[in-house]
Amino acid sequence: MGPHPAVAAIRLAVRRVLHDLLTEHHRAPAAVPHALPHQHPPSSGLRSSSEAPPRPPLVLVACSGGADSMALASALAFESPKLGIRAGGVTVDHGLQPGSDLRAAEVVQRLRELGLDPVDSVVVTVGRAGGPEAAARDARYAALDTAAERHGAAAVLLGHTRDDQAETVLLGLARGSGIRSLSGMAAVSGAGGRYRRPFLELDRQTARKACMVQSLPVWDDPHNADPSYTRSRLRHEGLPALEKALGKGVVEALARTARLSRDDADALDSWACQAEATVRDAAGLLECAKLYALPPAVRRRVLRRAAIEAGAPAGSLFARHIEEIDRLITGWRGQGAINLPGKVVARRQGGRLVIRQG
Amino acid sequence: MGPHPAVAAIRLAVRRVLHDLLTEHHRAPAAVPHALPHQHPPSSGLRSSSEAPPRPPLVLVACSGGADSMALASALAFESPKLGIRAGGVTVDHGLQPGSDLRAAEVVQRLRELGLDPVDSVVVTVGRAGGPEAAARDARYAALDTAAERHGAAAVLLGHTRDDQAETVLLGLARGSGIRSLSGMAAVSGAGGRYRRPFLELDRQTARKACMVQSLPVWDDPHNADPSYTRSRLRHEGLPALEKALGKGVVEALARTARLSRDDADALDSWACQAEATVRDAAGLLECAKLYALPPAVRRRVLRRAAIEAGAPAGSLFARHIEEIDRLITGWRGQGAINLPGKVVARRQGGRLVIRQG
Repeated sequence: MGPHPAVAAIRLAVRRVLHDLLTEHHRAPAAVPHALPHQHPPSSGLRSSSEAPPRPPLVLVACSGGADSMALASALAFESPKLGIRAGGVTVDHGLQPGSDLRAAEVVQRLRELGLDPVDSVVVTVGRAGGPEAAARDARYAALDTAAERHGAAAVLLGHTRDDQAETVLLGLARGSGIRSLSGMAAVSGAGGRYRRPFLELDRQTARKACMVQSLPVWDDPHNADPSYTRSRLRHEGLPALEKALGKGVVEALARTARLSRDDADALDSWACQAEATVRDAAGLLECAKLYALPPAVRRRVLRRAAIEAGAPAGSLFARHIEEIDRLITGWRGQGAINLPGKVVARRQGGRLVIRQG
Repeated sequence: MGPHPAVAAIRLAVRRVLHDLLTEHHRAPAAVPHALPHQHPPSSGLRSSSEAPPRPPLVLVACSGGADSMALASALAFESPKLGIRAGGVTVDHGLQPGSDLRAAEVVQRLRELGLDPVDSVVVTVGRAGGPEAAARDARYAALDTAAERHGAAAVLLGHTRDDQAETVLLGLARGSGIRSLSGMAAVSGAGGRYRRPFLELDRQTARKACMVQSLPVWDDPHNADPSYTRSRLRHEGLPALEKALGKGVVEALARTARLSRDDADALDSWACQAEATVRDAAGLLECAKLYALPPAVRRRVLRRAAIEAGAPAGSLFARHIEEIDRLITGWRGQGAINLPGKVVARRQGGRLVIRQG
């Protein structure tokens, strides 16, 4: 008799990602003929440094002790030995709740019991930049990056599920800043594709079930139910109401929207990148007539790139800023200079669009 | 003292659209040098037939008697004489509720009191194709098309507000079929750009307020509150819950997503249209190697176009169908023919993708 369907599902998802990593490992030497100069040996990719003796590659799981990441850890522990991969774990102590250190020690203990090695607990200091959720996320990824580099890990697995993806799409939708913000989390992200999300097509319920049938104790982060967090409100009220109105397929539809939007945004970015070179004059200035001839979707992306290149911080540059610059091209009636974030100014001068700082 | 801000807002929105129509009118003769052969005189655009004596152009408002379209009718009645435009109205009796004929007669009466002329009431028979909402919509637009042609109207104004747009985006999101379905309703649509939606950037509350301060009686369609309709559930439960979780800006963000997605989808469609010509061999067959080299977002659109061209009905062709065809290109391992709606079959043969009926 095989494993419970939920356990089979989480293992399959992890196996696929480990296979991808091994395939990349075998392809990598040809694809990366010259290593970039580094102070540390290359830490990403499954290839070992040619100077060091060959050692099985290491894959880490980022684990909070919650159901999603405990399921992920259990599947990694099960699948990695069969593929000649070492499996380790990291848990991040955000220090935001009393007793979070004990909690972290408990997670370390559970990961060791699963057979993972090495297992780290990392304490981080959460700042305030961008709000509590963004600050915690930034601190967490910085800690995971450090842990991956310290151990020379080939990849870090993250337990985000399809439900997390659906929530991320809705959060992006609320920003209303276009399809890039609808594209959610990538299955592969980070420097050198370090972060992998094997559960992005798997629902939260399956992860929870897999923990249950494997008798894995899980921890429910009280933040996940705290209505002062946007994501928590979305999870417990917004998304259920949307499902009630639109039907049970909403989560799957949102996840598919993410995949499609990501590909669409990538294609349009590549078009804008090519177009940018064609709309500049000999002095490198943007020619308004040539910008005008581009499709609006491509023109807006060229303008956004130009504003960021001039020093506008990407995170503070909103759709309405780009629309205002765009009106210098499409609705020109002699309007003055436009102030953008980062003290960047856009103005139209003699048929050219000039975007620069100061 | 000027009009109430809500009244000023609805009038401004209508004035802009009437201005657009007049601008198109003045540009049109150069842009359309040859009229297409027609049994009827050209009915779209504000130009009058060169054989007939010049007559002020006519703009119709489609009016259900609800707040949005009554506000629209009142603004059209106010603005049109100042621009030398005749204003008329049409109300559609769907025959779905007892007394709907009396209701229609009442709307006709109210439109006439606003000074509109001509005013029509059209009875339609609602079929069943595509569900009750789609069937009612199809019947309604067919009746509006007929009315516009009978009167030689230049345009038909529709009262859809920003709130309707937000609902439409969420309905598209629930289909999960990509950014085209996120692009909501267009400000200009229909044959020759006949349909115009002046209120697409205006919220429902403003339209309602404008009716109130002008003492215009409005009718609340019980269907709008009937929870057996998806849109009604979305309006009264889904969207409010989403606003509660994500903040009050959600409706505006959804409307902006619609505009951005529409431009993005248009740009990618034009790319796919160009790409399609480059990936066919001398015999007109799609070459798999060339398809493979396209960005995924463009390739999927080329595949979709090819399937529709081969006879697959666009409305039954879902993202999962296209993904399956795509795997013949990106994940080829000798899989068999793929059955698509409309008895269309896709198969890979000798490095070519063959999509045809039967």
